[in-house]
Amino acid sequence: MSVASSLLDRVRIVLVGTTHPGNIGAAARAMKTMGLSRLALVEPREFPSAQATARAAGADDLLVRAELHADLAGALHDTVRAYATTSRAREIEWPLLSPREFAAAALHSTGAGPLAVVFGRENSGLTNAELDLCDGSIRIPADPGFSSLNLGMAVQVIAYELRVAALAAEAAAAVPAPVGPVADPPAGWAATERLHAHLLQVMQEVGYLNPQRPKLLARRVRRWLARSQLLHSEAQFLRGFLTEIQARLKRTGADER
Amino acid sequence: MSVASSLLDRVRIVLVGTTHPGNIGAAARAMKTMGLSRLALVEPREFPSAQATARAAGADDLLVRAELHADLAGALHDTVRAYATTSRAREIEWPLLSPREFAAAALHSTGAGPLAVVFGRENSGLTNAELDLCDGSIRIPADPGFSSLNLGMAVQVIAYELRVAALAAEAAAAVPAPVGPVADPPAGWAATERLHAHLLQVMQEVGYLNPQRPKLLARRVRRWLARSQLLHSEAQFLRGFLTEIQARLKRTGADER
Repeated sequence: MSVASSLLDRVRIVLVGTTHPGNIGAAARAMKTMGLSRLALVEPREFPSAQATARAAGADDLLVRAELHADLAGALHDTVRAYATTSRAREIEWPLLSPREFAAAALHSTGAGPLAVVFGRENSGLTNAELDLCDGSIRIPADPGFSSLNLGMAVQVIAYELRVAALAAEAAAAVPAPVGPVADPPAGWAATERLHAHLLQVMQEVGYLNPQRPKLLARRVRRWLARSQLLHSEAQFLRGFLTEIQARLKRTGADER
Repeated sequence: MSVASSLLDRVRIVLVGTTHPGNIGAAARAMKTMGLSRLALVEPREFPSAQATARAAGADDLLVRAELHADLAGALHDTVRAYATTSRAREIEWPLLSPREFAAAALHSTGAGPLAVVFGRENSGLTNAELDLCDGSIRIPADPGFSSLNLGMAVQVIAYELRVAALAAEAAAAVPAPVGPVADPPAGWAATERLHAHLLQVMQEVGYLNPQRPKLLARRVRRWLARSQLLHSEAQFLRGFLTEIQARLKRTGADER
């Protein structure tokens, strides 16, 4: 099992009192796209549900394996940490994390057991008693003027941040493997210089250099080539193109005589 | 207008060939929660639609103001940059960004015009011809074993990253307020398209296109132009150069007779 998937495997998504079964399916699909698999449902209004299965769109294995609990305490009993998602500030100070801060914290929490992220009811969220069961809150930074994320969308954002953090941790942990030659390497300094000279040469041949200000165009071409980060193959086909233009000009020029 | 909202205001979400109108509504809702407001639809199967309005859940003002276009080029005509969301790698190298890298790039692109993010059809994505109209791609790092994000979910992830980046920039006051006309603005989509066509035209005239594989070269040129982030002045001098080559070829050709 990779570093990323063993981290993602510790996360349990807990949906409390979900009203629309379609949202449960959407949440399962969102989870699975990001490599999460552990779903717990607390008092869903309707479950199992054909609508949930339809919206899961291939993530129905998560629905089949979903835990069902009568209350939030049941869904959290074996977790080491639980975070509540919320769209409101509480009257008392409470650890409030952004999704990104949460993902970083999740990575650094001990590996001793599951980590829960709790999502409340579509309309009324979580009760204060339920919030009290959690160790901290996560707030998705929605527009204050229209902050009602759909439940599945909120799950998607949290799952996405967890996956990005897990992949980054994996990349950081991985020892870079020695690689072979790159298929299409960058052009490099010398090849870019040759292309630059060649371009100016052809510009001169077709009379496109201003003899009063030759350096200005040269500098513009240079700046542009520097920015374009040419690949070796591109420098080659551009030089081939320039050579072909020159050959064509010479041939017609020679025919003239 | 805040720094964040003036940045988010430049982003146009373009949905191409959407099959399920509910997904259009979900996308609008996702956008509005993150402070995005500009939606463009290219050949939606059904629109307007009661289903779209229902799923928009209060974001129906975005649907009312949505632009309708017959093809992708129409939706991109006035943009300075267009990014395609994709779940697959292309056969040739192409600028491929993560959502976070894209959001950072979006913030640092100049304020000269709209920036498009293009989402393809639910089942078949974007055609290669449509991808060719874009400057780069964004790939959401989904689980390779189950990578099918719902369309609305994909919009949510991109919109979320844009909002987080915009809020961070605002907090850091790192992004200068939109200023007057930029001294040397980017070339923009339409001018880059014209340069691309002009380049291929001259390549054909000098016999540098392989008639067996004309599309391969066209795509390489495109990829290179996309990466080079041409300025308006550069696109102009390159087109002037091409015109001069053509004139010279014609003149010598005419002298021949």
